[in-house]
Amino acid sequence: MNLDNEYFHSTLVNINGLILKPEHAVISIFDRGFLYGDSVYEVTRSYDGKIFFLDEHLDRLFNSMEILSLKTNWTKTQINQQVLMTFEQLKEPNAYIRIMITRGISKMGLDTDHCSQSALVIIVKKFQSISSEFYTKGYHYIIAKTLRVSPKALNPNAKSGNYLNSILALIEAKHHGAHDAILLNERGEVTEGTTNNIWIVKNKIIYTAPVNLGILKGITRDIVLSLCHELKIIVQEVAFYKEDLFTADEVFMTSSTKEIVPITMIDHRKIQNGIVGDVTSQLMKEYKKFVQRKLS
Amino acid sequence: MNLDNEYFHSTLVNINGLILKPEHAVISIFDRGFLYGDSVYEVTRSYDGKIFFLDEHLDRLFNSMEILSLKTNWTKTQINQQVLMTFEQLKEPNAYIRIMITRGISKMGLDTDHCSQSALVIIVKKFQSISSEFYTKGYHYIIAKTLRVSPKALNPNAKSGNYLNSILALIEAKHHGAHDAILLNERGEVTEGTTNNIWIVKNKIIYTAPVNLGILKGITRDIVLSLCHELKIIVQEVAFYKEDLFTADEVFMTSSTKEIVPITMIDHRKIQNGIVGDVTSQLMKEYKKFVQRKLS
Repeated sequence: MNLDNEYFHSTLVNINGLILKPEHAVISIFDRGFLYGDSVYEVTRSYDGKIFFLDEHLDRLFNSMEILSLKTNWTKTQINQQVLMTFEQLKEPNAYIRIMITRGISKMGLDTDHCSQSALVIIVKKFQSISSEFYTKGYHYIIAKTLRVSPKALNPNAKSGNYLNSILALIEAKHHGAHDAILLNERGEVTEGTTNNIWIVKNKIIYTAPVNLGILKGITRDIVLSLCHELKIIVQEVAFYKEDLFTADEVFMTSSTKEIVPITMIDHRKIQNGIVGDVTSQLMKEYKKFVQRKLS
Repeated sequence: MNLDNEYFHSTLVNINGLILKPEHAVISIFDRGFLYGDSVYEVTRSYDGKIFFLDEHLDRLFNSMEILSLKTNWTKTQINQQVLMTFEQLKEPNAYIRIMITRGISKMGLDTDHCSQSALVIIVKKFQSISSEFYTKGYHYIIAKTLRVSPKALNPNAKSGNYLNSILALIEAKHHGAHDAILLNERGEVTEGTTNNIWIVKNKIIYTAPVNLGILKGITRDIVLSLCHELKIIVQEVAFYKEDLFTADEVFMTSSTKEIVPITMIDHRKIQNGIVGDVTSQLMKEYKKFVQRKLS
């Protein structure tokens, strides 16, 4: 194990209530999380010592478990306490927090009968922001050839340990010298990024894919929807196509850790003049204010 | 960890060349195999002290890695040696053998740049056959509502650590009191079982889904295809639909560990009179002979 890895600085791991240094954070290779990606997870962050929207993330964690029929003895309250305990012990006011529940150890094979108690794994590490340049200059995305997994095969609303679909799309993006990828569905509709929701602005109206298209119901997405409502910006949750990305006035993405990041280039083509648009800038500012308001 | 679990009897685990008792077989929770199911695997078995078709399984393991752009420093020859070494140490002539390669540890996030050396995990355990009754009376399958993941999203020919699609289908099957599930694709074509290939017999002709439909190119599937060729049984690799299952004379499945198992009931409906058909019986016998021939 490479101890120079960033994981091993300013990081603590909680496994089933036991707080460990990262180099001691190990799990049985028989855990179904390792064998089959049979797990759910959430990621959030803290700002100045306060964890952001933890309840909402835990609600979604339990929703993911419901979709996958994954049972745990841990209650939301207990997980909340374990997260807080680990966060307090790390003493990093700005932390990245990943909460994961696996289906535990079962008999050999896929059968979920007679699983052992599920494993709870919480990673808390010092938050490392992406370069501030991305917020002022924007990301370069590609439209991946890899299509988003259909909700009829594995509902993206179960935020699970099966991430190869997104990984393949991201590999494509890096291969083209881009930062990330947008995935389409079988009908050619824009779904989402590899770990983020996608938005376009056209004639002052904002568009984003509806949840029933097969996307994750992002928590930051929900916040942006309500901010738009407050600001009286019209938002439509409708299906749109890759052509709509290229002809948009602005494109941006939302994620719990990165907040709102402009996308100024797609498939090596500048969106409008390639600079960050007014609506995106406004929402970025309003989002910061919203965070401050929530945490104060 | 529940030490009564079957995993912990007559089992050895090899992690990166180190042979361990199962209770000591642990991996970092930062390994991408655990975080994202970012791994490939193969399963084979031994008969009377001889490992069956190991080279073919290792070829397919490396093919899966190719599809996922997953790199390893382990060569096929080295993995072969590690498998043999672990197998010899267990001293179980009839063993189940699982070989897994993960993408190792990377920086936080999906990005595959700067991954650590991949992890090699080999599980060798005493082979536990399914009840002999299944070979004489057959399995009960359901047709899952969960559709097979499209090859445009994640090619099933990459035998990977993302198994939730199959797990969801199997949960459906158990929910209906059945043994396993058949998955259809978006077009309603029969693809495969959760971990096995599906075949039907109609008027002495055998049909199975073509690989380009989005199925795993089964090694047992290949053997059955060549056995049919030898026996002058006509096989057609063509798409067929769930109606063809119900009107078939016989249905069976193939898997590396279970060989050939009849399917005599689907969705609570008997296939013909619900007994094992002649072609299936013949192939089951011929497969046994083939194994003996290969290993002698």
